[in-house]
Amino acid sequence: MARVICTGLGPGDPDLMAVRSDRLIRAADQIAYFRKAGRAGQARRIVEGMLAPQAVEHAMEYPVTTELPFDSPEYNDALARFYDGWADRLVALPGEVVVLCEGDPFFYGSFMHLYTRLQGRTEVQVVPGITGMAGCWHATGTPITWGDDVLSVLMGTLPEEALVDHMARAEALVVMKTGRNLPKVRRALERSGRLADAWLVENGTMPGQKVRRLAEVAGEDCPYFAIVLVHGHGRRPEALGPEVAP
Amino acid sequence: MARVICTGLGPGDPDLMAVRSDRLIRAADQIAYFRKAGRAGQARRIVEGMLAPQAVEHAMEYPVTTELPFDSPEYNDALARFYDGWADRLVALPGEVVVLCEGDPFFYGSFMHLYTRLQGRTEVQVVPGITGMAGCWHATGTPITWGDDVLSVLMGTLPEEALVDHMARAEALVVMKTGRNLPKVRRALERSGRLADAWLVENGTMPGQKVRRLAEVAGEDCPYFAIVLVHGHGRRPEALGPEVAP
Repeated sequence: MARVICTGLGPGDPDLMAVRSDRLIRAADQIAYFRKAGRAGQARRIVEGMLAPQAVEHAMEYPVTTELPFDSPEYNDALARFYDGWADRLVALPGEVVVLCEGDPFFYGSFMHLYTRLQGRTEVQVVPGITGMAGCWHATGTPITWGDDVLSVLMGTLPEEALVDHMARAEALVVMKTGRNLPKVRRALERSGRLADAWLVENGTMPGQKVRRLAEVAGEDCPYFAIVLVHGHGRRPEALGPEVAP
Repeated sequence: MARVICTGLGPGDPDLMAVRSDRLIRAADQIAYFRKAGRAGQARRIVEGMLAPQAVEHAMEYPVTTELPFDSPEYNDALARFYDGWADRLVALPGEVVVLCEGDPFFYGSFMHLYTRLQGRTEVQVVPGITGMAGCWHATGTPITWGDDVLSVLMGTLPEEALVDHMARAEALVVMKTGRNLPKVRRALERSGRLADAWLVENGTMPGQKVRRLAEVAGEDCPYFAIVLVHGHGRRPEALGPEVAP
């Protein structure tokens, strides 16, 4: 038996987590999850009503989020100490602990920073999950890719020139970490000729799900976890059917 | 209730399908799935042991696979007629039918071609699944992306120059539709300086799972659904921990 099991929670609807994760979470004696201090936390919210009455909860609260610039040494130091500390605490726990991770733990997941620190110290097992971006493309009711489409997944934190370069080359696009980067993402989409086909999806598969054409979104800001999508149109099989637009 | 429900089966291990898909498949009175004529079919194999005794099965057998060049008008015509025919038959079925789809139906899924044809004719519902590529990166035991990595998903059917161009620009890479395209994919990885970091994953999360460094694979061919991966190393947070190699 693994001492630490990280379960991918999927995009938000508890009905979309893997059968294995569902079973592990319901049976867990100890669970741990990341959250911002003072918040309930998205991961914890997804499993509401699933935990056993005796389950002991460990909230791993980020020491900083937006108070320090994310590329400063102070930010990195604070987070490194935070992950070091929790790796030590998880290893010291009696028995097995289930760590909750939104989406898929191996796809831009924070668990990665614990995973590297736990190697060689205890047995670790990771259960895949449906990614948040998949929840968002399902929310649009349209396939993200077909035929020979190239899909590029970009972070809104990248420099504008890098965004433009990638956006102009791929058929299908996913932009994560939007939030305060939204104006830059919008400019890059406009410069690469993709803005008219871009969608902003908030809370994909969750209560409050919202799907809008990005060109029609007035605000200059959106939740950090909102995702921008541009669907591919299939590079090849013209004869197989008309393209679908959401 | 939807008349046609497409359930994503995930990467292959039945324990990794979504709770909702598991429930729908076990309760289904009618199921349908694609397969190559004369084969059991991967989708059907994944649900072995899950179907209700009274479930009626509809095997949708591809009229052609590799007998015709996939970019010929004959190939496209044959497939278009095949999808037209099955769209008609699914709509004519009494009650509800559950269509099985490996991976995620909206991510390079064949169901796409039925989905476009069913629009406006009957109610269609699609349940997301964990993608096959996610099953493969979990098989390597290493996160595919972290920090600000760019991930590009490429099809092995693309021209070599296009592959090289994308491979040189993204941090993390997934190459699908490998099979007989493997020599071209290998050359493109070599030309873009990524071959040493590339992995070939067969049957991710399934019996017969095989993870090898592509540079050490002698053969010139591999199963069509084998996936080539290059992991990202995290663009940013040096201080957060060492990179992990599988």
